[in-house]
Amino acid sequence: MKDSTIRFFSGSDIRALLTMEDCIEAMKSAFSSLSDGEVVMPVRSRLEMLPDNANALFMPVYMPTINRVGVKSLTNCIDNPKKGLPMIHALMTIFDSSTGVPLAILDGEAITAMRTGAVSGLATSFLARESSRTAAIIGTGFQAETQLIAICTVRPISRAYVFDLLTEKAEAFAGKMRERLNIEVLVAASPAILQEADVVCTATPSRQPVFDDAFLKPGAHINAVGAYKPDMVEIPPETIIRAKIVVDQRDGCLAEAGDILGPLEKKLITADHIHGELGEVVTGRVAARENEDEITVFKSVGVAVQDLVSADLVFRKGLEKGIGTELSLA
Amino acid sequence: MKDSTIRFFSGSDIRALLTMEDCIEAMKSAFSSLSDGEVVMPVRSRLEMLPDNANALFMPVYMPTINRVGVKSLTNCIDNPKKGLPMIHALMTIFDSSTGVPLAILDGEAITAMRTGAVSGLATSFLARESSRTAAIIGTGFQAETQLIAICTVRPISRAYVFDLLTEKAEAFAGKMRERLNIEVLVAASPAILQEADVVCTATPSRQPVFDDAFLKPGAHINAVGAYKPDMVEIPPETIIRAKIVVDQRDGCLAEAGDILGPLEKKLITADHIHGELGEVVTGRVAARENEDEITVFKSVGVAVQDLVSADLVFRKGLEKGIGTELSLA
Repeated sequence: MKDSTIRFFSGSDIRALLTMEDCIEAMKSAFSSLSDGEVVMPVRSRLEMLPDNANALFMPVYMPTINRVGVKSLTNCIDNPKKGLPMIHALMTIFDSSTGVPLAILDGEAITAMRTGAVSGLATSFLARESSRTAAIIGTGFQAETQLIAICTVRPISRAYVFDLLTEKAEAFAGKMRERLNIEVLVAASPAILQEADVVCTATPSRQPVFDDAFLKPGAHINAVGAYKPDMVEIPPETIIRAKIVVDQRDGCLAEAGDILGPLEKKLITADHIHGELGEVVTGRVAARENEDEITVFKSVGVAVQDLVSADLVFRKGLEKGIGTELSLA
Repeated sequence: MKDSTIRFFSGSDIRALLTMEDCIEAMKSAFSSLSDGEVVMPVRSRLEMLPDNANALFMPVYMPTINRVGVKSLTNCIDNPKKGLPMIHALMTIFDSSTGVPLAILDGEAITAMRTGAVSGLATSFLARESSRTAAIIGTGFQAETQLIAICTVRPISRAYVFDLLTEKAEAFAGKMRERLNIEVLVAASPAILQEADVVCTATPSRQPVFDDAFLKPGAHINAVGAYKPDMVEIPPETIIRAKIVVDQRDGCLAEAGDILGPLEKKLITADHIHGELGEVVTGRVAARENEDEITVFKSVGVAVQDLVSADLVFRKGLEKGIGTELSLA
């Protein structure tokens, strides 16, 4: 048996290796391949853990163009916040699909945060007005950070307003991001301040709309990354009805995205109202933004190929820079 | 974010921690729970990787009685032997199901070899004659080693005959196992020598019977661990017809075990011919061996709960003995 090795990447390894620019670029190839039908993603297995009031998800994916196959394993424990623990934990493992050898194991939380930010960055680069300078971030959890970083990567954002039901959390987030991004980050004084925002990101666990459609600035672009289940909602139906809707994956959003399913069930829209998939926009098969006034919404529920390309990028950079822990399998 | 850690266990860590005795004991609880309906195992996802002439399997499993959930990920690359690489590679990850936190990542090959041996050991302890002294091992791959170790753990085996189409491989195996087990291990001089064997283990990738039913000793017990697909066969139909058949899992064997499916399709047996599941034998719901002359066959295709209990055992012992590499996730 030859002494084969595998690399482990912690959250800080991942953050050290993965720049948002590179991760957005990786998303471009992931979503083109996805819309071109080049990615194999079986239905994810969901395992109910009733005695623990929890569930686990296993998301396998294969991308032949980069010779990688992998799986993200994720646990979702409903009672965790009561215990002071994060609700979600995740690990990602990747293999070389041409030899089958395991290549890397990665902290799944850091990968998820980066890839969820990066896909909003990619969408923003195609859908937001070039001149976008003001952002609104609704929700201040760990997804919110990479949302703001991502949109600052693709647009000349100089000011961000932060919305959270808890002022303390909003202030902590604003302080942290101000230092990190060296832009003005202000806690929103009123819901109406949304009127200034060129790009809006919603990243909350909400079950009702998190802003008032009337406050949207003409030409605003919205990235909606919360509401990954049918009973969750972030975007007002009025916005969905009048906006150009781009999704990460049509089937996934039609199965899971409360923001789309609500208006569909109430017959306010039909499935045709979805303008296209991000991959179709990236490859030019469907139009991106067509004028300065339209409202655009990018709705994502997350697809496993995002995790795979991000993990592969971390692995390749880690090898190159000697970052990550090398472990012998034998 | 608190500094959570995870433990990595290499093949040698696993071999250092997991004794066959303990692993057999763990199988006992796994198979009782399985037959009691206490284990949650979704259908495994199989991902075809046609461009690479390969496939990947993801086997999730949850066992609430030990608060563990996990997944074994396995790649199967058909062209690997031509490249001098093993066909199968695997990794196992386990989580605490009550908090969702990832606990351990383990080399999947070592876990698979141990648990496949251990389940044959458990079956042998219930089905082989107490006085069994002679073993026959057909096939000399890495599964064969743990098969022989397992049966030596539960029965007073003093001699083993080794069968392989390649004499060189058989001799290497015999030499290695002789040293390891301190028993007589002989390369079988002819197929007829099977007549001496009290316990037979078949662990081959064969597509046709690997022995002649006429050579079986009265009262022999057979562990058949190859033939995990419908088009694979190790056991002659005559043996299946006259033997008491115990399986690891009824549904799994009726879906995948060529040894059972062949005789079923030819209407030589019906599904009722399966005497019971190993868990039913262990819990006493169905009889084990009932006399000194009957032929018993234990047919296993492998179930994910075996991996989970083995991985959990490695994890707990590793913590206790300070073996395994501690890694920070943060």
